Amino acid sequence: MALIEYADAVPEVRAVFDDIKTTRGVADVNNFWKALAVHPPTLRRTWESLKQVMAPGALDPLTKEMLYLAASAAAGCAYCTASHTAAARAKGMTEAMHGELLAVLGIAAETNRLAEALRVPIDQGL
Amino acid sequence: MALIEYADAVPEVRAVFDDIKTTRGVADVNNFWKALAVHPPTLRRTWESLKQVMAPGALDPLTKEMLYLAASAAAGCAYCTASHTAAARAKGMTEAMHGELLAVLGIAAETNRLAEALRVPIDQGL
Amino acid sequence: MALIEYADAVPEVRAVFDDIKTTRGVADVNNFWKALAVHPPTLRRTWESLKQVMAPGALDPLTKEMLYLAASAAAGCAYCTASHTAAARAKGMTEAMHGELLAVLGIAAETNRLAEALRVPIDQGL
Amino acid sequence: MALIEYADAVPEVRAVFDDIKTTRGVADVNNFWKALAVHPPTLRRTWESLKQVMAPGALDPLTKEMLYLAASAAAGCAYCTASHTAAARAKGMTEAMHGELLAVLGIAAETNRLAEALRVPIDQGL
Amino acid sequence: MALIEYADAVPEVRAVFDDIKTTRGVADVNNFWKALAVHPPTLRRTWESLKQVMAPGALDPLTKEMLYLAASAAAGCAYCTASHTAAARAKGMTEAMHGELLAVLGIAAETNRLAEALRVPIDQGL
Amino acid sequence: MALIEYADAVPEVRAVFDDIKTTRGVADVNNFWKALAVHPPTLRRTWESLKQVMAPGALDPLTKEMLYLAASAAAGCAYCTASHTAAARAKGMTEAMHGELLAVLGIAAETNRLAEALRVPIDQGL
Repeated sequence: MALIEYADAVPEVRAVFDDIKTTRGVADVNNFWKALAVHPPTLRRTWESLKQVMAPGALDPLTKEMLYLAASAAAGCAYCTASHTAAARAKGMTEAMHGELLAVLGIAAETNRLAEALRVPIDQGL
Repeated sequence: MALIEYADAVPEVRAVFDDIKTTRGVADVNNFWKALAVHPPTLRRTWESLKQVMAPGALDPLTKEMLYLAASAAAGCAYCTASHTAAARAKGMTEAMHGELLAVLGIAAETNRLAEALRVPIDQGL
Repeated sequence: MALIEYADAVPEVRAVFDDIKTTRGVADVNNFWKALAVHPPTLRRTWESLKQVMAPGALDPLTKEMLYLAASAAAGCAYCTASHTAAARAKGMTEAMHGELLAVLGIAAETNRLAEALRVPIDQGL
Repeated sequence: MALIEYADAVPEVRAVFDDIKTTRGVADVNNFWKALAVHPPTLRRTWESLKQVMAPGALDPLTKEMLYLAASAAAGCAYCTASHTAAARAKGMTEAMHGELLAVLGIAAETNRLAEALRVPIDQGL
Repeated sequence: MALIEYADAVPEVRAVFDDIKTTRGVADVNNFWKALAVHPPTLRRTWESLKQVMAPGALDPLTKEMLYLAASAAAGCAYCTASHTAAARAKGMTEAMHGELLAVLGIAAETNRLAEALRVPIDQGL
Repeated sequence: MALIEYADAVPEVRAVFDDIKTTRGVADVNNFWKALAVHPPTLRRTWESLKQVMAPGALDPLTKEMLYLAASAAAGCAYCTASHTAAARAKGMTEAMHGELLAVLGIAAETNRLAEALRVPIDQGL
């Protein structure tokens, strides 16, 4: 699958790459964005959505990033797990926090599977 | 699928139910535990694991609960999503926090799918 | 979603229903087949495949049925989990065997998630 | 992702590695355990759970291992599929048994998907 | 989970509901939007994205809708499968087309599972 | 995992390989078939099913191939995503069509996740 570098990108793609670099303070964008650049409207829309969702709000940036990591690992996406583990560390996730996040992911997977295998009826009032 | 009530439970199951009720300060256990009681060793082991994992540590209880919810929703488990949404609310998740958690789950699902559909190579150094 | 009963079925569907009833020694077919009857070629092909796969071979019928149940529960299919739990019981799965199967499903889910979240490299030689 | 070798491990991790090697009669532990060693409490808890679940019981060790493999393959975990295929072979799974297990996994995936796409109602009495 | 009706909605939500009704020519919005209205920014962003993605382009509306249905069924989302089956029918999917779509979904699930269980290496050049 | 080449294959496997090559007009079969050849009955049955399902019908070959790709990407199968992206291109999927297919996959993943996390009740009449 082709990765589109800045030098080879059309202006619409360069504008998104520039915004990602400025917003994140990084020298280059991740492979995800270079791959998504094959379809400029999806690149732009996805970046605009992600920027809006990950902005600080009722949840702090580290919590959002760890939720992103939890969802990505639960979905089994290797690329996403790798990049959001790195992003969470950059935002302050320590080894101890990562270890506990892994433990929660593991026990959630186990109880999710058991609840489905036993077809447990949802508790009244929920 | 049968749910085993306290009154009908063998002593080994009652002991676990008692510990759940004491630890959580609740009058009755959730359906999940009543269903899991069909196999007492799995009931006890699962509860012991969950109690250890969800105890306060490097991550606070609310963050752990929201990670549990994120993993459960990403895995598509309806029972788990219902019960961990309620648990997170009981631990302090506001409507605004829930809304942002949902937004993170949604964008994570979208970018996970795109990363896999494009087979994006993991960035160097990760 | 419509369920097609024998009385309302076209001859091609009736022929498959008859073969299911004869092969399994049952008075009526499960809802799955009544739903699949909306597309007779898929009904026939799916039944022929299933009949061939589930026939006794190097694995005995109960082991095959428990593997089917494990795969269905791991995939989170509620209908399939319900019907293959019943089928496994009919073929001899005891409560104790079911309990151990659930325990394996649970620990497999947990270690699967951890292996993916940690991106563990496959061991040399495998 | 770092793999922690025995020589570099803290005593708590070494104790688990020793127990794995003794229980399984192997010279070294799999990468899964070396990766999990980043969080010693999760390493120890996971190993203790797995050892308990996989011990002989109402189901024999080979059947348990094949169920583990079925669940892992259904969950799409490449590492787990590789290691449990090897483990099942070591416990006596022949080529013919593996072929039939694959066939069951395939037909289960197909019928799971069809049952969900058709939203088949669960049969009365199940 | 609460569904927010138009009469009870804040102006920001009403504006989105109005746009959905106008764009689709319907008298009321689906439950999905009423549920998503708990978080107005996610409601608006999701609707804007969906409207942009589903607009006619290189793929016609029916093909897009069937792809949406295929992805939803493959992800095991019951709500999404129900609503996109209805939407595809409204856009011209006949019974025969639906039957063939189901057949493709089934065989894709089977071969996906087998490819993963066998860990097939990607063909050279792809 | 072993790949079985034509030169090393038993007659039953060669017959299937020959039919694949003739039907598709290709010089060699994909790795998927070479891997599946470890179990000749599953190889033959899977190929016969796939050939029947993918034959022209109410849906044209390109639409079927894109549905196959959508289901494979939604299921997170890397091998299947790679091979069906190539197959769809060979049948006429342009870059613009691929970009729109990706966009549909992404928005479907997002709304699927949100619908499940919100436990949206299925709309009346569906």
